[in-house]
Amino acid sequence: MRGAPRNNTLIYPHPIDLTMIQSPRGTRDFLPDEMERRRFYEGVLRQTAKRAGFREVQTPIFEEAELFVLKSGPNILNELYAFKDKGGRDLALRPEMTAPAIRSFVNSMSNDPKPVKMFYFGQCFRYERPQSGRYREFFQFGAEIVGAATPQTDAEAVATALEMVKALGLKGYRARIGHIGVLRRRLAEAGVPPDRAPEVLQRLDKRLYDEALSLMEAAGASQEGAESAIGVARVSGGIEALDGIAGEEPGYLRQVLGYLAAMGVDPPEIDLGIVRGLDYYTGMVFEIEAPALGAEKQICGGGSYALSELFGGEPVFSTGFAIGFDRALLALEKEGAPFQGERVDAYVVAVSEDMRARAFEVVGMLRRNGVSADVDLADRKMAKAMKHASAVGSRYAVIVGAEEMASGSVTLRDMSSGEQRLVKVEGLPAAILGH
Amino acid sequence: MRGAPRNNTLIYPHPIDLTMIQSPRGTRDFLPDEMERRRFYEGVLRQTAKRAGFREVQTPIFEEAELFVLKSGPNILNELYAFKDKGGRDLALRPEMTAPAIRSFVNSMSNDPKPVKMFYFGQCFRYERPQSGRYREFFQFGAEIVGAATPQTDAEAVATALEMVKALGLKGYRARIGHIGVLRRRLAEAGVPPDRAPEVLQRLDKRLYDEALSLMEAAGASQEGAESAIGVARVSGGIEALDGIAGEEPGYLRQVLGYLAAMGVDPPEIDLGIVRGLDYYTGMVFEIEAPALGAEKQICGGGSYALSELFGGEPVFSTGFAIGFDRALLALEKEGAPFQGERVDAYVVAVSEDMRARAFEVVGMLRRNGVSADVDLADRKMAKAMKHASAVGSRYAVIVGAEEMASGSVTLRDMSSGEQRLVKVEGLPAAILGH
Repeated sequence: MRGAPRNNTLIYPHPIDLTMIQSPRGTRDFLPDEMERRRFYEGVLRQTAKRAGFREVQTPIFEEAELFVLKSGPNILNELYAFKDKGGRDLALRPEMTAPAIRSFVNSMSNDPKPVKMFYFGQCFRYERPQSGRYREFFQFGAEIVGAATPQTDAEAVATALEMVKALGLKGYRARIGHIGVLRRRLAEAGVPPDRAPEVLQRLDKRLYDEALSLMEAAGASQEGAESAIGVARVSGGIEALDGIAGEEPGYLRQVLGYLAAMGVDPPEIDLGIVRGLDYYTGMVFEIEAPALGAEKQICGGGSYALSELFGGEPVFSTGFAIGFDRALLALEKEGAPFQGERVDAYVVAVSEDMRARAFEVVGMLRRNGVSADVDLADRKMAKAMKHASAVGSRYAVIVGAEEMASGSVTLRDMSSGEQRLVKVEGLPAAILGH
Repeated sequence: MRGAPRNNTLIYPHPIDLTMIQSPRGTRDFLPDEMERRRFYEGVLRQTAKRAGFREVQTPIFEEAELFVLKSGPNILNELYAFKDKGGRDLALRPEMTAPAIRSFVNSMSNDPKPVKMFYFGQCFRYERPQSGRYREFFQFGAEIVGAATPQTDAEAVATALEMVKALGLKGYRARIGHIGVLRRRLAEAGVPPDRAPEVLQRLDKRLYDEALSLMEAAGASQEGAESAIGVARVSGGIEALDGIAGEEPGYLRQVLGYLAAMGVDPPEIDLGIVRGLDYYTGMVFEIEAPALGAEKQICGGGSYALSELFGGEPVFSTGFAIGFDRALLALEKEGAPFQGERVDAYVVAVSEDMRARAFEVVGMLRRNGVSADVDLADRKMAKAMKHASAVGSRYAVIVGAEEMASGSVTLRDMSSGEQRLVKVEGLPAAILGH
């Protein structure tokens, strides 16, 4: 096994195929309109995170594969894009960013004032068959609060996630909150040994109650205990759903919901059946879904967890979440959320060839004054250049003619109304920007 | 050879090492202060590109390895991070973004109004020994004008690159412009066969004139012709350096410089020895360097080229450039360019435990009104919470006490001056944002 090739013939034994190369399966090119929309919503999420006192971090696109194995177990290797570096280390494209963020905390931020509140945005990679809303290269926006273990911390994470979804403008979404501790304890009380609990929890997470029941009984649980556990997994509804649930978790969740209410955040529904698969979750767990997306409807998931010790750091409690950026945007699209990109302000057209240099003077001046401006680069005659101005969606055309230039003026044409007027060159930026 | 592992034991024959995992060699974590600086300058470049009528595109982190081989030749394979996908295709982390951008143009933009002006920003990967200013994961900001072959197009690309460097605030930089056609023709005239030209050009690019001379003579060039070629490669200076150079290229470059002058851009120096290594450059070539960086001083390179046909598209001429984002930022750092990040506006502190929920009310209200606000999450007593407000660099502390709250007020403390005053809760956003 090896990573980058040293011997080219291993990779290219066949003649190079000159048909059109495409982007690799499961990946996408984002063209200008879509990219502008994505940068806009990325900005909305970033702004919301910063407003809540989170600060951005960025980790590499790849990590030592071991990092993800430590977090998620060896099965994760089947879903990783893996390769070796020149030192023979096993590397992998990141499948998620919580592990890298916590690694970065352990390496470089463990002495910072706590809690450290960080967020991140970027590509993640999953080596699976592409399907609707699931890509091999996908984007996550996540946040972590590291170094505090209080109901306030959990409330802050849930509130930030919900504010983000709201800030995106998504209307149809549903948030649910639970506490992994309730089910874990109930399984233990029912007599399910700790090493058999994960498979049971996995079934409960998928609402496969019959399978969970069989597994519990096969693992030595009493029928009564097993049924009681399933009863807990089905608890959902308003805050009153917590009434009658034993243990300290209901009280803890009530505190979280109390802080959310204080912050003016609509309370998530209670759902004690949320499991979120992985062992490192320690307490509160939550999910946000957009039902319009159908089967792949989860757009955000999070909870409190302990990872830093696994990565060689001090034990530190954290709460975090990640928003599936692609799915959130897909949900917005399904809701028909309008997005109007910004096109170029002005397209400068020379009336004749001898005015071309003057057109470039005007373009340079406009840009220096904060106007986005484009200019014909293809030696087009005026009529064709005007057509191009329209094709690129420019708001205005600036027509540079010899006669008008002689008196220091140009013609400003509003491309939507077709209205034209003479404007002094020095007054152009104000005329275009409208102040 | 294979990519992602199917058999875990191949990757983990050894017990997992629990010492602290680091980011992979040649990669970096960007912590909040640095990340804020990077996002700021990324924004400056994006703004400059948009102002010049460029629109953003984004391509995948990895591509079919073939794409880069087509562009740069098979030697590039030694510098790629490569792996296979489940379909057995050879993939590679992108070493640069011109090839992906042109592939994307060929796949999806070839029917758009031309020229297509696009820009992109992101990670690239180079499988080499890390050294100062050179990372295995590095960042490029690039732009391409696709589908026009005029002096105006070349001027637009050079002007945009120079405006970007200026917009970053870099002071010590030097731009040089040349035309690959002059040297190419001179080599042919001297009798160097086309297949021997690349090695000669490579030496000339590195200013290894003696080696270039020997190679030319070994390739069958006359001594006179070889010396004349070297003479041309040494031509540099102001626009008058073009006087006496035969061929159409000097006239073409004069036109490019004319349009640059019209746009108000300081003219680059003439340097006919710029080669930029690769065969696909067809005409104008340019480079910008920051001498403060020493040996690795080039921060931008570009020129006109033809690539789309190579990737299976129609023949289309393009001009583009890429800025080495990491080096540009390193140059700014060496110049001591000041950067002041934005810290959180307000840190909300409860005077006592029973005021905690009220503190969260205030935080929620502040954020909804556009104030970035943080709050104690660690059950700190007031004095320690005030210390934390200072540690996170908050501009203000908002102190929530029972007595003040009874009259709907809180104490607003300016963290730099220490000045305190009572403010009505509803007046807090205006008091903090200063309007």
